[in-house]
Amino acid sequence: MLSAEIIAVGSELLTPERMDTNSLWFTQKLNEAGVELKLKTIVGDDEERLEETIRDAIKRSDIVITTGGLGPTEDDVTRQVSARAIGRQLVYHAELETVLRERFRRWGREMPEINKRQAYIIDQAEVLPNPNGSAAGMMTEANGKLLVVLPGPPKENQPMYEDLVAAKVRAMAGGVLVKRRLLRVSGIGESAVDERIAPIYKTYPSVQTSILFSKSEIEVHLAARSENEEEADNALLELAEKIADALGPAVFATNGETLEEVVGAMLKERGKTLAVAESCTGGLIGMRLTDVAGSSAYFLEGAVTYSNEAKIRALGVSEETLAQHGAVSAETAEAMARGMRERAASDYAIAVTGIAGPDGGTEEKPVGTVFIGYADVDGTRSLRFTFPGDRYLIRWRSSQAALDYLRRRILKAEAA
Amino acid sequence: MLSAEIIAVGSELLTPERMDTNSLWFTQKLNEAGVELKLKTIVGDDEERLEETIRDAIKRSDIVITTGGLGPTEDDVTRQVSARAIGRQLVYHAELETVLRERFRRWGREMPEINKRQAYIIDQAEVLPNPNGSAAGMMTEANGKLLVVLPGPPKENQPMYEDLVAAKVRAMAGGVLVKRRLLRVSGIGESAVDERIAPIYKTYPSVQTSILFSKSEIEVHLAARSENEEEADNALLELAEKIADALGPAVFATNGETLEEVVGAMLKERGKTLAVAESCTGGLIGMRLTDVAGSSAYFLEGAVTYSNEAKIRALGVSEETLAQHGAVSAETAEAMARGMRERAASDYAIAVTGIAGPDGGTEEKPVGTVFIGYADVDGTRSLRFTFPGDRYLIRWRSSQAALDYLRRRILKAEAA
Repeated sequence: MLSAEIIAVGSELLTPERMDTNSLWFTQKLNEAGVELKLKTIVGDDEERLEETIRDAIKRSDIVITTGGLGPTEDDVTRQVSARAIGRQLVYHAELETVLRERFRRWGREMPEINKRQAYIIDQAEVLPNPNGSAAGMMTEANGKLLVVLPGPPKENQPMYEDLVAAKVRAMAGGVLVKRRLLRVSGIGESAVDERIAPIYKTYPSVQTSILFSKSEIEVHLAARSENEEEADNALLELAEKIADALGPAVFATNGETLEEVVGAMLKERGKTLAVAESCTGGLIGMRLTDVAGSSAYFLEGAVTYSNEAKIRALGVSEETLAQHGAVSAETAEAMARGMRERAASDYAIAVTGIAGPDGGTEEKPVGTVFIGYADVDGTRSLRFTFPGDRYLIRWRSSQAALDYLRRRILKAEAA
Repeated sequence: MLSAEIIAVGSELLTPERMDTNSLWFTQKLNEAGVELKLKTIVGDDEERLEETIRDAIKRSDIVITTGGLGPTEDDVTRQVSARAIGRQLVYHAELETVLRERFRRWGREMPEINKRQAYIIDQAEVLPNPNGSAAGMMTEANGKLLVVLPGPPKENQPMYEDLVAAKVRAMAGGVLVKRRLLRVSGIGESAVDERIAPIYKTYPSVQTSILFSKSEIEVHLAARSENEEEADNALLELAEKIADALGPAVFATNGETLEEVVGAMLKERGKTLAVAESCTGGLIGMRLTDVAGSSAYFLEGAVTYSNEAKIRALGVSEETLAQHGAVSAETAEAMARGMRERAASDYAIAVTGIAGPDGGTEEKPVGTVFIGYADVDGTRSLRFTFPGDRYLIRWRSSQAALDYLRRRILKAEAA
C-alpha cells in the first residue's frame, strides 16, 4: 500500500486555540484512493524545521502533501522551502503574474508588488491554478515520490485536490479504491454489537470492519478495498444490510446519517408532524431537528419550559403533578408530552425533563437522572435514564435518547 | 526562548475521524511556562517513523513530549522506541509491577502477563507514577534536552504533567511565565478594532497582542511574559481595561467568557429574567443560555415557533401581522418578543425570525435575512441583519446577534 504524509504549515496552528483540521479531509481522500496516511506534521513559519520535515517526508513516504504558507508575505515560506528541500530552484511564471494582476484589477485595486512572489513555482513542477484564491499550488515528482504543495484555505485546496491531484494519486495507487460506509447503533453496547455481528463481517474479508464507541452510540465503520467502484459499493451495501438485519431496530443509520436526519426522514415519508417540550435540554432537541434543511415540513413547534410556571402555563402540566411527583418525574414528562401534542395539534410529541447538573441532584434522583415522555394518538409513555457524564454529555445523551425513543415508537407501532 | 515539540502516538489519530486534541492543552501549558511550541507530529504505531521522529525532535528542540502508545499490547511501541531513539535500554522496575498487580487485585482480577510490559522504564529515567491508569510515564534528560513520555488519555497525562513535569519545565525555562487573557468583541470589524487599540497596546511592549476573526466576533489575545506572576496578571488586567474603555460596549468579554455566560451574569446580578422566542434558530439560543449551570435563576422559558400557527397560538402574533408583513419581518419579530414577554411574565424577551437556507430566500429577503426582536417594560424594538454563510453559520450568527442585542439594550438603558 502506498504511504503518505501531510504537512500543515502555519504558526497559528501551533497555538492553544487552533488545530490543523485540513488534514482530516485529505486523510479521507487518500484512504479512498487506497493510500495509507503514515504521519502528520504541523510546523510553523520556521524555514529550517519545515525544510527538514519536507526532506524527511519525501525520503520515507510515497506522497507528501503540504497545506498553507503560500501567501504573499515574508512569513509565507513554503514556496522557497519546498523547492530547497528537493534541491530545486523557484522559477518565475509570467502567466501567473498576469492572472494575479487581473484578479486585483477586478477588485478595482492595483496588485501590491509583494504579490509577485506568488508567481514563482518550483522548477519543473506542474502549476495548479487556483480559481478561488491568489496562491497557485504546485505538484512535482522528486526521486519517484510525489510532492503536492497546496494553499491553506479548504475552499482553495479541496477543489484543487479534486480537480488536479486526485487522478494522479489514484493512478499511482494502481487504481485501487477504498469506499466507506458507517452504521450507527443505539441502545446496545460495544461488545454486544461485536458479538452479534462478528460472524457476519468475518465472511467479508475484503471489507475492513471496526467498531467504535462515540459519545452516545456505537459506530460500525466498514471499508471496502477494490479496483472496481461498483463491486466495493455492492459489498458494503450487502454487509450493511446483513448487519442491520442482525441488530434490528438498534441500527438507526446505515449510511452515516445523523439521528435528526433519520427521524426527520421518517416523519416526512409518513406525512407526520412533531412537537417537542424540553426542560433540561433547553432547546437542544429543537435545534438538532431544525438543523436539517426542510424540517419545517414536520417540525411544528417546541417549548422550552425551564420554570414550573412555564410547564403549567405553556403545556398544561398540573400543579398537582408537579407537587406530587416533582418536575423531574415520569408523570411530569408524560404530562409535558401530552400537553405539547394537544397544543401543537401534532401527531407526535416528545418531552424531556431531568437533572443535567452539576447541582440539583438528590440521593433518589442523582445528577444524570432524565425522564423522556412520549405522546401519540394512543396516549403517553415514558422512560427513565441515568446518564453518566458532565452537563454537556448529559444534555447531549438526553436529546439522543428522546429522538431515539420517538424513532423506536414509530417502528414498533408499524410492526404491531 | 526554549523550544518544544509534541509527538502524539496512535494509528487512530491518523484516520479521517479522529484528531490529536491532547496537544492543545500541552501547548497552553508550555506557552504559560514561556516555552515555544515549534512542531507537532502525529505518528501511528510505526516503530521506524516514531523512532526517527523522536530522534529528530530531541536533536532540534529543548523539550520533547510524547503522548500515547504506553498500553500493554504489541501495538503500544512508545516505551521501547523512545528508549532506542536516545540510545538507552528499558529496565524492569519491580515496584511498578507490584503497583499494577495491586490495581488489578482491587478490580478483583488477576493481572494478565502482558501488562508486565508496563513495568519497564527507560534506563536512568524518572518514573512518573500514574494514579489514574496503568501506564506510568517517564522523564529523562538526553544530551541536555528533556524527553517526557506520557500516556494518551487526558485524565492521566494532564495531572501527571501538572504534578511531576511542570516544575521541571518551568525551571528549565528560567522561571519565566506567560499569562494570557482573551477579550471578545462584537459588532465591529478586525481592522477597525486594530486601528482603535494599536496606539494602546503598542505602549505595552511586554504584552504580545494579536487580533483574530472568529465565526461571529473579533478576538483580542493578550500574552504577557514575566518572571513575576502578579506583574504579568496586572499588566494584562490594565491593558484589558484600557482596550475595553477604547472599544466601549463592543467588548462583551474581558476574560474569555462566552456571550451566554456574560448575558447570564448580567441578568443574575440585576435580578432580571428572560424568555426567548425562536423561529429559524430552532432552540439554539435556549440551548446556549441553558448551557450555563445555574441558568434557571434567570432563564424562564423559550418557545420554538417554527410554524405560523405556533407563532399565533403560543405567542399571540396576529394573523394580520403575518399576512401583511410575512413571518420574516421586523413586525413579526417584535410581536414574537412582545408575546413571549407577556406570557412568560419575564423582564426581557428576545425573538428571532429569519431565513437560514439553503431554500426560502427571495430577492427582497435573501437567505441570511434575520430579524431580531426585543421587548422590555418600555415596549419593543427590532434589528435587521443579512448574515453571510451556510445554514449552520447563519443560525449561529443569529443566536449571537440576539444575545448581543439584549446585552447592549441592558447597558444602554442603564447609561441613559
